[in-house]
Parts: sequence; C-alpha cells; structure tokens
Amino acid sequence: MRGVGIFDSGLGGLCAVRELRRLLPEEDIVYFGDVARIPYGTRSRETVCRYAAQDAAFLVSKNVDAILVACGTVSSTALEELKARLSVPVVGVVEPAAEEAVKASRNRKIGVLGTQGTIASGAYKRAITRLSPDAQVVSVACPLLVPIVENGETDGEIAHLALQNYLKAPLAAGCDTLLLGCTHYPLLKDKIASLAPGVALIDAGQAGANATARLLRENRLVYGTGKTELYTSDFSQGFSTLAQRFLQDESIQFSKEKVNAEDWK
Amino acid sequence: MRGVGIFDSGLGGLCAVRELRRLLPEEDIVYFGDVARIPYGTRSRETVCRYAAQDAAFLVSKNVDAILVACGTVSSTALEELKARLSVPVVGVVEPAAEEAVKASRNRKIGVLGTQGTIASGAYKRAITRLSPDAQVVSVACPLLVPIVENGETDGEIAHLALQNYLKAPLAAGCDTLLLGCTHYPLLKDKIASLAPGVALIDAGQAGANATARLLRENRLVYGTGKTELYTSDFSQGFSTLAQRFLQDESIQFSKEKVNAEDWK
Repeated sequence: MRGVGIFDSGLGGLCAVRELRRLLPEEDIVYFGDVARIPYGTRSRETVCRYAAQDAAFLVSKNVDAILVACGTVSSTALEELKARLSVPVVGVVEPAAEEAVKASRNRKIGVLGTQGTIASGAYKRAITRLSPDAQVVSVACPLLVPIVENGETDGEIAHLALQNYLKAPLAAGCDTLLLGCTHYPLLKDKIASLAPGVALIDAGQAGANATARLLRENRLVYGTGKTELYTSDFSQGFSTLAQRFLQDESIQFSKEKVNAEDWK
Repeated sequence: MRGVGIFDSGLGGLCAVRELRRLLPEEDIVYFGDVARIPYGTRSRETVCRYAAQDAAFLVSKNVDAILVACGTVSSTALEELKARLSVPVVGVVEPAAEEAVKASRNRKIGVLGTQGTIASGAYKRAITRLSPDAQVVSVACPLLVPIVENGETDGEIAHLALQNYLKAPLAAGCDTLLLGCTHYPLLKDKIASLAPGVALIDAGQAGANATARLLRENRLVYGTGKTELYTSDFSQGFSTLAQRFLQDESIQFSKEKVNAEDWK
C-alpha cells in the first residue's frame, strides 16, 4: 500500500482524515490514533517524542509516502525530531494553521488555544510572529478541553464554564481570530463561536489537511483507490461514538486489530 | 532491597505512601507512578491489565515482598490477573475500602465515586453487597475529576460544578457514606465534605494502606530502614507541585531515573 499516513494522540485527527478525503477523494489514507496513551498534552517533551516516533514507525510500516501529524502537541514539540528520523515528508499542523490565522486576522491580534504542552512550547506563537512580526498573540493552555471532549461532555455546563474561562484573555485583548490548536477542539467549535461572536476560527487539523493535500499534489504523490484504513491502540468505552463524532462517516470502520504502539521503534 | 511496592497510574498513590509510612515508620517503600500513561480509568480492560502487569514487573525487579495496588481502576479490573501473575502478595484498594464503607454506614446507603473504568467494572458495588447484601449502592462515574486534580484546578468553579453534578444521585438517594474510589479524589475531600455535610468519606487509598500494613504485620514482613524510593515514568510540567500535594513531605524526592514502564514485561 502507498498513500498518506495520519496520526494523532487519539481520535481528534479523524477530522483531518475527513478533510483530506474531501480534498483528495482518490488518495489512500492510513490513520493511527493512540487512544491507549492519550492525552499527550500533559506529558514531558521527551515522552511526547518517544510516543510520536513509535506512532510514526507504525505508519511507516504501512508504506505511506507522507505523514500528517494531526496532533497539535506533537506538531509543537516533536516535529523536527520526526523529520530527522523519517525518510518520508512529514507535515505538522502548526505552520499551516499559523499561515491561515495570519491571513484571516485583520487587526493582527490572534488568540491560540492548545494543550499545556503545545502552549508551553510556544510553537504557534513563534510561527505566527515569524509570518507577521508585529502580531499580538494571546496563548491559552486549556487542559480540561480534551477530557471534556473525550468524555462527551461538550454540551454541558462544565464545557461552557471552562470555555468562558479560557476565552477571557483573548477576548479581552480584542483578538479577531482564534486558532484552535488541538484536533479535539473542533467538536467545541459551535460553543466557541457562540462565546466569541464575529471572531474567525482556524482549525489546525483542517489547515494541516490542506497543507498535506498541497504537498501530495505538488510532488505528484496522489494515487490510490480512495481506501481508508483506521487503526487504534485501544478500544475504550464510548470509542465508537466518539470516533463517529469526529469522522462523521459511518461507512468507514476501524480495523479490529489493536496496535500496541509501544512495540514500534 | 526488601520492602513493600506501591503503584498507581499517577501520583495519587502518594497518599497511600504517606499513610503507610505513618503506620509503619521502619518499612522500606518503593513507589511507581505511571505518569506517562495516566489516566487508566478511560482505557479498555485489556489495556489496563497490560499496563498493570508492566508496572508490577518494575516493582518486582526491586525485590519487594508485597505490592499495594493504589490505583482504583487496576484494583477494580485487573487485580485477579495480577495475583495470578505474581508470586508476592498483592493488595488492592477495593475490598479494604468496601469493608470500611460498610462499617461506616448506618443506613446501608453507600455512594461510590470512581473513574469510568472502575464504575463500569462494578467491583466496588460487588464488594459492598458481598459484605452487606441489602446495602443500596449508588455508583457514579466521574471522568473529569482526575484531569481536574491533575491540572491543579481543585479550587475552581469547574471542580465545584463537576462535583455538584456527580454528587447529585448519591445525595438524592440519602447515602450517609461516600466511598472515594480513586486515589486522586482525596485532594477534593474538603470540597466533597462541604457539598455533602454529615456524610462519612472513605478514602480507598488509605483503606488499602491500612490493609497492607495489617498484611505485612501478620506475615512478619515488616523490616527496613524507613527508606522511601519514588519512581515515575514521566516528569511533566507541574510534576513536583502535584507530587508534593499528594505526599506532603518535602524531604522525600523522586528518583531522577525515568522508568519506561512499557519496557517491563
């Protein structure tokens, strides 16, 4: 099999799968979601690098031509290590999302929401100010959003309260653009939109999918039969429901083979 | 080294270390916290069993005489597998906590708070009704409490709102006793106590420490120099602060050696 590999710490990257399938209907896609070790955002950089190397090694074993790192944490903290390690091109979500955010913003005040690891890395802020040196970036670590999404509590009062807290600083600063720097956050997009009316929302996973489609087209790597293979490291309670919420395509099923990512080197 | 080994999915088991140190000042204690793969409570049973076997294998390599499984999820879902696998005695937190809860309750209405995995296993409910067949058990899965504690948000509005939701059913049922079935929850004890006035709170980690001290004394396995060795699989941001909140003893430091639990078989 040739095609493109996508991985994420969990199921959030399925949004990027959906987007890439829309952009390149014929491309073969292999996805790996490391559900057994989610979340990555609260781990040390060293541990994120180790996990990312194992996840990528699994995709490489599937003979993919390129890899999209749909995980905001890995894209922010371990992308250079991955690129150095792998012989296939690797695309992260940080640079593409920063580009889209800079294009979208009129007042050059951009808010960034991400996991603790992502925000601590400063990667989004650096990418944005590299493109727009006088941009004002308001970064907010949102440690509870991944567990809220994972546990299907996106519509509850807790999600509302958490988002209200996390959005306080970027809204007070007058940001006209919010970069959702984690693949889980699109499931909170409607709630974020209602709490931040008139603010442009940039989805990092979608931006990564756009960049990957461009890369594949430019390098004439687009081919396949439109096959989608989905793998995961665990099938926990509520797995299928959550997968469907991200993927929104009931015809695509996960492989029943459970991948022990820790065994890949 | 001889002594007792304690493991948990993260740092919550340090409360049990503290308690065991108080009960047995001379005992040598080795602790392992699998911070790199926390939380266990949302994983499948199969994955929890694999992780638990690896954690225990690390402790066995330290030549411990007995193991206390401070993790509520492992105690609920993987204890029998661990006992079958290991030649040293293994104590979980479920049976001891159920005993203490049954003793504490006057109206035999007992609430149980735990992770998704713990509650889905039904282990606490089974243990309680085995001891007190006509007890009414109100079990509540509390998936957001571990992330709330892990992210130091125990004093905020979100913790308050989450606990209010989770306590609704046991309070409405008139429970006079609440079993805190996860080692993270003691850091929310004051908040729980204020939301459930007059209700007895049973701490599973403490109950496990009591049972372990009894086992060691009965089997004349108590010896050592009062040494405490702490190991972890990751040093994430905020690690030291969280460890100190659980341990409350600044003189005891974690080993700088990071243990890759996934390598232990």
